[in-house]
Amino acid sequence: MLLNKQISIIYFLKLIKWDILAIFLYACLAGTMDYFSFFKDLSIPFSISAMIGTLLSLLLAFRTAQSYERWWEARTVWGAIVNDSRTLIRQLIQFLPEDDSKAGIVKEFSVRQSVWCYALTEALRKCPSEKVEQYLKGENKDSDNRPNLLLTLHAERLSQISRDYQLNANKQVQLDSTLQRLTDAMGKCERIKNTVFPRAYSVLIHFLIYVLTTIFPFGLDDQHWGIEICLATIVPVLFIAIERTAILMQDPFENKPTDTPMNALSATIERNLSEMASLPKPEHPGQPDTFYLM
Amino acid sequence: MLLNKQISIIYFLKLIKWDILAIFLYACLAGTMDYFSFFKDLSIPFSISAMIGTLLSLLLAFRTAQSYERWWEARTVWGAIVNDSRTLIRQLIQFLPEDDSKAGIVKEFSVRQSVWCYALTEALRKCPSEKVEQYLKGENKDSDNRPNLLLTLHAERLSQISRDYQLNANKQVQLDSTLQRLTDAMGKCERIKNTVFPRAYSVLIHFLIYVLTTIFPFGLDDQHWGIEICLATIVPVLFIAIERTAILMQDPFENKPTDTPMNALSATIERNLSEMASLPKPEHPGQPDTFYLM
Amino acid sequence: MLLNKQISIIYFLKLIKWDILAIFLYACLAGTMDYFSFFKDLSIPFSISAMIGTLLSLLLAFRTAQSYERWWEARTVWGAIVNDSRTLIRQLIQFLPEDDSKAGIVKEFSVRQSVWCYALTEALRKCPSEKVEQYLKGENKDSDNRPNLLLTLHAERLSQISRDYQLNANKQVQLDSTLQRLTDAMGKCERIKNTVFPRAYSVLIHFLIYVLTTIFPFGLDDQHWGIEICLATIVPVLFIAIERTAILMQDPFENKPTDTPMNALSATIERNLSEMASLPKPEHPGQPDTFYLM
Amino acid sequence: MLLNKQISIIYFLKLIKWDILAIFLYACLAGTMDYFSFFKDLSIPFSISAMIGTLLSLLLAFRTAQSYERWWEARTVWGAIVNDSRTLIRQLIQFLPEDDSKAGIVKEFSVRQSVWCYALTEALRKCPSEKVEQYLKGENKDSDNRPNLLLTLHAERLSQISRDYQLNANKQVQLDSTLQRLTDAMGKCERIKNTVFPRAYSVLIHFLIYVLTTIFPFGLDDQHWGIEICLATIVPVLFIAIERTAILMQDPFENKPTDTPMNALSATIERNLSEMASLPKPEHPGQPDTFYLM
Amino acid sequence: MLLNKQISIIYFLKLIKWDILAIFLYACLAGTMDYFSFFKDLSIPFSISAMIGTLLSLLLAFRTAQSYERWWEARTVWGAIVNDSRTLIRQLIQFLPEDDSKAGIVKEFSVRQSVWCYALTEALRKCPSEKVEQYLKGENKDSDNRPNLLLTLHAERLSQISRDYQLNANKQVQLDSTLQRLTDAMGKCERIKNTVFPRAYSVLIHFLIYVLTTIFPFGLDDQHWGIEICLATIVPVLFIAIERTAILMQDPFENKPTDTPMNALSATIERNLSEMASLPKPEHPGQPDTFYLM
Repeated sequence: MLLNKQISIIYFLKLIKWDILAIFLYACLAGTMDYFSFFKDLSIPFSISAMIGTLLSLLLAFRTAQSYERWWEARTVWGAIVNDSRTLIRQLIQFLPEDDSKAGIVKEFSVRQSVWCYALTEALRKCPSEKVEQYLKGENKDSDNRPNLLLTLHAERLSQISRDYQLNANKQVQLDSTLQRLTDAMGKCERIKNTVFPRAYSVLIHFLIYVLTTIFPFGLDDQHWGIEICLATIVPVLFIAIERTAILMQDPFENKPTDTPMNALSATIERNLSEMASLPKPEHPGQPDTFYLM
Repeated sequence: MLLNKQISIIYFLKLIKWDILAIFLYACLAGTMDYFSFFKDLSIPFSISAMIGTLLSLLLAFRTAQSYERWWEARTVWGAIVNDSRTLIRQLIQFLPEDDSKAGIVKEFSVRQSVWCYALTEALRKCPSEKVEQYLKGENKDSDNRPNLLLTLHAERLSQISRDYQLNANKQVQLDSTLQRLTDAMGKCERIKNTVFPRAYSVLIHFLIYVLTTIFPFGLDDQHWGIEICLATIVPVLFIAIERTAILMQDPFENKPTDTPMNALSATIERNLSEMASLPKPEHPGQPDTFYLM
Repeated sequence: MLLNKQISIIYFLKLIKWDILAIFLYACLAGTMDYFSFFKDLSIPFSISAMIGTLLSLLLAFRTAQSYERWWEARTVWGAIVNDSRTLIRQLIQFLPEDDSKAGIVKEFSVRQSVWCYALTEALRKCPSEKVEQYLKGENKDSDNRPNLLLTLHAERLSQISRDYQLNANKQVQLDSTLQRLTDAMGKCERIKNTVFPRAYSVLIHFLIYVLTTIFPFGLDDQHWGIEICLATIVPVLFIAIERTAILMQDPFENKPTDTPMNALSATIERNLSEMASLPKPEHPGQPDTFYLM
Repeated sequence: MLLNKQISIIYFLKLIKWDILAIFLYACLAGTMDYFSFFKDLSIPFSISAMIGTLLSLLLAFRTAQSYERWWEARTVWGAIVNDSRTLIRQLIQFLPEDDSKAGIVKEFSVRQSVWCYALTEALRKCPSEKVEQYLKGENKDSDNRPNLLLTLHAERLSQISRDYQLNANKQVQLDSTLQRLTDAMGKCERIKNTVFPRAYSVLIHFLIYVLTTIFPFGLDDQHWGIEICLATIVPVLFIAIERTAILMQDPFENKPTDTPMNALSATIERNLSEMASLPKPEHPGQPDTFYLM
Repeated sequence: MLLNKQISIIYFLKLIKWDILAIFLYACLAGTMDYFSFFKDLSIPFSISAMIGTLLSLLLAFRTAQSYERWWEARTVWGAIVNDSRTLIRQLIQFLPEDDSKAGIVKEFSVRQSVWCYALTEALRKCPSEKVEQYLKGENKDSDNRPNLLLTLHAERLSQISRDYQLNANKQVQLDSTLQRLTDAMGKCERIKNTVFPRAYSVLIHFLIYVLTTIFPFGLDDQHWGIEICLATIVPVLFIAIERTAILMQDPFENKPTDTPMNALSATIERNLSEMASLPKPEHPGQPDTFYLM
C-alpha cells in the first residue's frame, strides 16, 4: 500500500515536471531582473493577483468537484455492473426450473457475463484482453462493439431458453430488464469515456493560470530574492497541480492511477459468479490494474 | 484533433472579439485620461472592485456549474437514447418468435429507430436531414413533430405485430416501456432546447460585469500607462470570457462547437443497430457534426 | 423577442424601484453628512464591509442556486407532463384492440388529458380557465381539486374500458403506471407551489443586506461626494437585485415573467395529442402566458 | 400570515437571545478595556479575522445548503406520500370489480391511509394523535412502530381481497408497489429524523465561530468605543444566526416553525381521499401544525 | 447523550494531537526566532497566506461537502435496506396463500434477512458477528462473500416455494425485484467501502495545509511573541481539523464515531421483522455500535 502511495505521488510529479520547471525558470528570471532593478518601477499591485486568484480558486474548486463527480459516476456505474451481474445469475437460479441442464445454463451465463466485464474493460481502455479474444474465437463471432455483441448473445440465448422451457413471460421480461440495465451501464461508460470536457471551459482555466503566473511575481515585495522566487514558483505550481488533479479524475477509463479499477472489479465479479454457479474458482483474475489495487 | 482544437479557440475568440475591442478602447480612454491628469483626483478604491469581483466570481462560478449541468444532462439524455435504441432492438430479438418474418421486423424497427435519431437531431438543430425526408416520403406521412410521429409509427406497428403473433402482454408492455423512455428522452431534449436561462439572472450577471469594467481602471495605481491599460483590458475580458463559456454550454443543441454530437451519436446508433439486425453497414453516417467529432 | 426582453427588464426594475429609491436617499444622506463633516470622525473600516460582503455573496450565490434548482425542477416536472401525456395516448393506441370505438376512446382521453393540463395550470396560477369550466360542466362534476378529479375520471373510464374489452391486466397496470406518474407530477407542482422558502433563511439574508447597506458608506473615502453616493447606491442595489432574482425564480407558478410557461406547454400537448388522436388542430391554444412565450 | 411571520422571527430571536447577550457582554468588555488602554498594545490584525471569516463563511454556506437539502428532502418525501396516497385509492377504484362491496373497501383503505399519515406524523413528532389512538383501539392492535403496523394491515387486507375477488396477480403486484413506495417514504422520514448531523462537523463550525468572536474585537480600530462594540456584537451574531438557521432546517420533524407541515398535509390527504371514496368531508383536520400553515 | 458527546470530541482531539503538537512546536520556533531577530528581515506578506487560505478554504469546503455526501449516501443505502427488509416480509405476507406453512416461511425469511443485515455489517466492518457465524453453521454453508451467499439462499428458497405453491410468476418477479434492490444496496456499500478517495486530490490538500502552516508565521506582525504563537498554532490547526473531519466522514464503515450505525439499524430491522412475523422480540440486539447510538 505504501509502495502504491509512493508510485502515485511520483507519477503525479512526473506529470507536471515540465510545468514546474518552466514556472521556476520564469520566477528566477522575473525575480532576478526585479532584484537587479530592471523592472524596479514595474509593479502590479498584489490585490489584482488576489482577485484573479479568487476567481481562479472558485473555478478550480467547481471544476475539481465536477471531475470528482465524473470519477464517482464512473465508479458508481461499475458498482451497478457488479450488482446487476450478480442479479442476473441469481435470477436464473430463481427462475429456471430444476432439471439437468439448469446448472449448465447458469454456468454458461456466468462465464459470458464475466467475459462481458472484461470486454467492456478492454473496449474502454483500448488494450486487448486475452480472455475475451479466446471466448469470442470459441463462439466464432466478432464485432467492433464487443460488449454489445455479448449482450446480444445473452438475449438470443435467453430467447432460446424461454422457448425450450416455456418460461413464463414475466420472468423473461424481468431477465430482459437486467439486460437493459447492463446496456445502460455500458452506454454510460461509453458516454463518460467519449465526452471531452468542454474545451472552452478548460482552455479558459488554463489561460487564467498563465495570466496569474505572469503577473504574480510583480506583486511581491522586492526584498528577498530567494523568497520571491520560492513563492513565485510554489503558488502557481499549486494552481497547476489542482488543475492536473481535476484532469486526472475527469477521465476515469484511461489506465491511470486514479482509474476505475475495472480489472479488479471484473475479477471480483468473476469470483462471485463462479461461486454462485458452482464453477471452480478462477485461478488468476486476468491482468491486474497496473496502479490501483483495492 | 489539433486542428479541431485550433478551430474551437478561434471560434471562441471570434465570439467575443467586439467585447474585447470595446473594453480595450474604454481601458485606453480611462488610462490615458488618468495619465494626463483629467481624473487625477478621481479614484475608486480597489477594494470595491475586489468586492464586486468576489460577488461576480461566485455568481459566475455557480452559473458555469449550472450551464455545465445542462450540457451534461443533454449528453446524458443522448446517452440514454443510445442505450434504449440498442435495448429496443435487443428486446425484439429476444421476444419475437423465430419465424421467417422476424428478421424483417427487426430490420424495419432498426431503420425506423435510426431515422428517429436523425429526426430528433433535425428537430433540435432546425436543419433538415435528407434521410428523414426520404423515409417519411416513403411512409407517405408527415407531422410538425416528426420524432413523435415516428414513435407513434413504432407503437402502431407493435400493436399490429402483437396481434399477428399473439405476443404475450408482458412483452408488449416491456416494449412499450422502452418507447416510453424514448418519449421521455425526446421530451427532455425539447425541454433543454426550449427553456431560456432565466432572463433576470443572466441580465444581472451581464450588468455586474459592466459595472466592474467601469470602475476597475479607477482603482489601479496611476504609474504605468501601459500596464494599467493591459490590466484594465485583461481582467474584464476574463470575466466576459467565463460568462460566454457558460452561455455556450447552456444551449447544447445549437450547432456550435460545444454541441452534443448528435450526428455522430446517431451514426453510432445506426451502425450498432445495423449490425444487430444483420443489415449492411451504413456507408457514410449522414452529415457529420461540423465541429465536434468524438 | 426583443420586445419581450424589454418587458422583462422593465418589469424587474419596477419590482425593486422602492428599494433603489430608499437606498439612494440613504446614500445621499450619509454621503452629504460625511462630506459636511458631521460624522467626519465616524468611519467603519471597509474591510468589515468586505467581510460581510463575502459572507453575503456566498449565501446569495447558494440561495440563487437553490432558487434556480426549484425553477428548473418545476420546468422538469412540466416536461415530464408533456412526455407522459404523449405516452398515455400512445399506450392507448398500442394496447386497445382495433375496432370501431377505439378512435373514439383515444379522442376522449386526448381531450380529457389536454383539459387536465389546463386544469393544473389553473389550479397552480389560481386564475380560472374557460376550457376547464366548460369541460367539467359537460361532465356535470366538480371538485376543489380539479386535476385530481380528472385523473380519477381517467381511472374510472380505464376501469370500464378494461371490463368492456377484457383488456389484459398487464396493459391495465401499464396504463395505471402512467396515471401514477401524472399523479406524481401533479403532487410535485403542488409541493413547489405550496412550500414557502424557509423564513428564517430568507429573513436573515434580507437583514444582512440591510446591515451592509448601513455600514457601507462609512467605509468609503470621503473625497468625492458624487462618487461616494453612486457607489453607496449601486453596490447595495446589486445585492438586492440578486436577492430579488432568487425570489423571482423560487416561485415558478405565479404568473410572472420567469414562470414556467404552462399555457404554452399545455397548448403544445393539446396540439400533439390532437394529431395523435386524429382530432382537428386546436384553433387557438387557450390564453397565452402573459410574459413568457417560448 | 403577517402574524405568522412575526411569530417566526420572534421565535428565532428567542432561540439565540443568550448567545446575543454573551457576545454583547464580551464585546463591551473587550471594547472598554481596549478604550481604557489595558490591551492598547494588543492587537490582532484584522486580516486574520478576515481569513477565518472567509473559511467560516464557506463552511456555513455549505452547511446551510446541506441543511436546506435535508429540509427539502423531507418536504419531497411528504409530497411523495401525498401522491402515493392518492394513487393507492385510485388504483383500488381502477382495479376492483364493480360490485356492492367495492365502495366499502375503498372507504376502508381511505380511512386507514389517512390514519397512517397521522400515525407517521405522531411517530416523527413524538406527540400522540387521538385519531390514531381511536383507530388502533377499534382494530384492537398496537405496535411500537405504528405506521409499519398499519402498512402490514393494508397488506393483509389486500391479500384477503385478492383471494376473495380472484384479483389478477398483476394488479396485486401494482398495489404492492404502491405499498412499497409508502414503506420507502416512511423509512426515509425515519432516516432524516434519526440521523444526527455529523458531530465533529458541527462542533468544529461552532468552535470556529467562537474563535472568530474572540479575536474579532482586537482587529478593530480603537477610535470609537460605541461603534467597536456594535460591530463586535453584530458580526459574530450574524454568523451565529446563520448557524442556527442551518440547525433549524436540518431537523424538519421537530415541531418547530420550519417544520414540514405534516398535519396540514395529512389533512389535505384526508380531504382528497374522502372525496375520492365519496366519504363525508372531514370536519376539522386533526390538530393543526402550531406554527406553519400553508 | 452528553457522555457520548464528550467521547466524540475527545476521540477527535486524540486523532489530531500529534499534528497540534508539531504545529505548536513549529509556531514556537518560528515565533521565538522572529522575536529574537534571527529572521527579522524575513517576512512573507500576509496577503499570500490569505490567497492560499482562500484557495484552501474553497477546496476544503468542497471536500467536506463531498465527504458529507458519501456519509449521507451510506446512511441512505442503509435506510433503503431497512425499507426493503420490511417490504420483503410484507410481500411474503401479502403474496403467500393462507395455509399452515405460511407462518413458518415468513419466520424463516425474517430470520435470514436479519442475519443478512448483520452479515453485511460484519463484512463492511471486518469484525466477526456471532449471530452470522451460528446461522451459517446451522445452514452448513459458507463463502468469502457471506451477504451474497445469504441472498442466493433467499433466491433458492423462493424458487422452491414458487414451485411448491405454484406461485404466480408476477409475484415471483416482484419478490425478485426486492432481492435485486437488496443486491444493489449491498453493492453500493461495497463501493463506498472499497473506493479510496482520489489520492492526488487528498495529498494535494494535505500539502497545501503544510505550505500554509510554513509561511503563515512570517506574515504576522512581530510585536507579541505570545499572540503570534497562539495564532500560528490555532489557524493551521483549524484547517487540519476540517480536513480530518472530512476524512472521518468519507469512510462511513470503519467503526468510528461518525460511522453509519449499522448494528443499531440491524437491530431495528430485526425487531420490526420479528413483530411482523410474530416471532418473539429479540432479547439483545447484537453488539451495539461502540460510539454512535441513535
